[in-house]
Amino acid sequence: MPNAIDFYFDFGSPYGYFASTVIDDLAARHGRGVDWHPVLLDTVFKTTGATPLPLIPLKGAYSVRDVERTARFHKIAFRKPDNFPVPTQNAARAMLWAQSAKGDEMSVRLARAIFQAAFVDNRNISDTAVLAELASGLGLDGAALLDGVQSAAIKEQLRAETDLAMAKGVFGSPFVIVDGEPFWGFDRLDQVEALLRDGRV
Amino acid sequence: MPNAIDFYFDFGSPYGYFASTVIDDLAARHGRGVDWHPVLLDTVFKTTGATPLPLIPLKGAYSVRDVERTARFHKIAFRKPDNFPVPTQNAARAMLWAQSAKGDEMSVRLARAIFQAAFVDNRNISDTAVLAELASGLGLDGAALLDGVQSAAIKEQLRAETDLAMAKGVFGSPFVIVDGEPFWGFDRLDQVEALLRDGRV
Repeated sequence: MPNAIDFYFDFGSPYGYFASTVIDDLAARHGRGVDWHPVLLDTVFKTTGATPLPLIPLKGAYSVRDVERTARFHKIAFRKPDNFPVPTQNAARAMLWAQSAKGDEMSVRLARAIFQAAFVDNRNISDTAVLAELASGLGLDGAALLDGVQSAAIKEQLRAETDLAMAKGVFGSPFVIVDGEPFWGFDRLDQVEALLRDGRV
Repeated sequence: MPNAIDFYFDFGSPYGYFASTVIDDLAARHGRGVDWHPVLLDTVFKTTGATPLPLIPLKGAYSVRDVERTARFHKIAFRKPDNFPVPTQNAARAMLWAQSAKGDEMSVRLARAIFQAAFVDNRNISDTAVLAELASGLGLDGAALLDGVQSAAIKEQLRAETDLAMAKGVFGSPFVIVDGEPFWGFDRLDQVEALLRDGRV
């Protein structure tokens, strides 16, 4: 079986959410799995000196419009969260905790539930009680999640995962790496698919 | 006849060049004309505080790869210029001069020739002698162009055109406005087409 493709995202990124709704099917059409990697864009932006899109003059107002329009264009359920942007450390740690406790598949189910909570159901995903509730809904131990997201091991793992992503060239969300080839942005998934299909783009 | 759509670009922007190769046909498929507007991203970025893509850590190296890959993906002739980025005041002024001297159609022909020179033929489009040669190739008066790009009137016009573009929300290249709806990026032309076709997106 060929290598899985790597999918990097921040739970606060609307374009990361959009990619999360299609990436597994896209990869599966070409016999590939997907490794999901939550990262912290705040940390990445501190390193690259980039400014979060919503805070840039002109671009910020445009980005709100572009997100809503892009969701409609691709027929993806979306509701702009009342709290945006939100800190995403807890959400990312919750996913890493689920992965270590229950494996990749369950961690991806939790990631989907978190994205849906944030960008469809207008829940505050920085709130650990919300994360525990989402986990419980999947049959996970919500109390164990609350401990997990506060553990030194999970905190250190998220730092290391974000550093590793940057070392591989990741600077935004979503970011996809296929056999060493990097793609930034939901709007590059057409090129990701071309590479998977044709072996080149 | 419905309103023309507005197409803003900087002559140094590869994605602006990509858009220039398809925008007229795209609009014509839906009974629209295109008004071409050269602007200076340097001036825009000074206002918005944005950093030119090639100068951002990680993003800069990626952007070179993305430009070349995107050209291949869309089958657009492209060769990375040896001098990149280049100042584009002279190119933008040359286009405005051609417009005032010979009208919109000739100015768009000159714009296409400038883009081709920059991004296919590896010419230095900051060099007024190159611009005069391109103009002469279209039957324009190259010596008059040399005077034109130095005239106070054309310089002032470019400043005003760039200010006007920013007032309309333009912050990057390419930028397209259709009946008041703004679109940033070559990768949003699919949404531009949806709006032209369906009246909404």
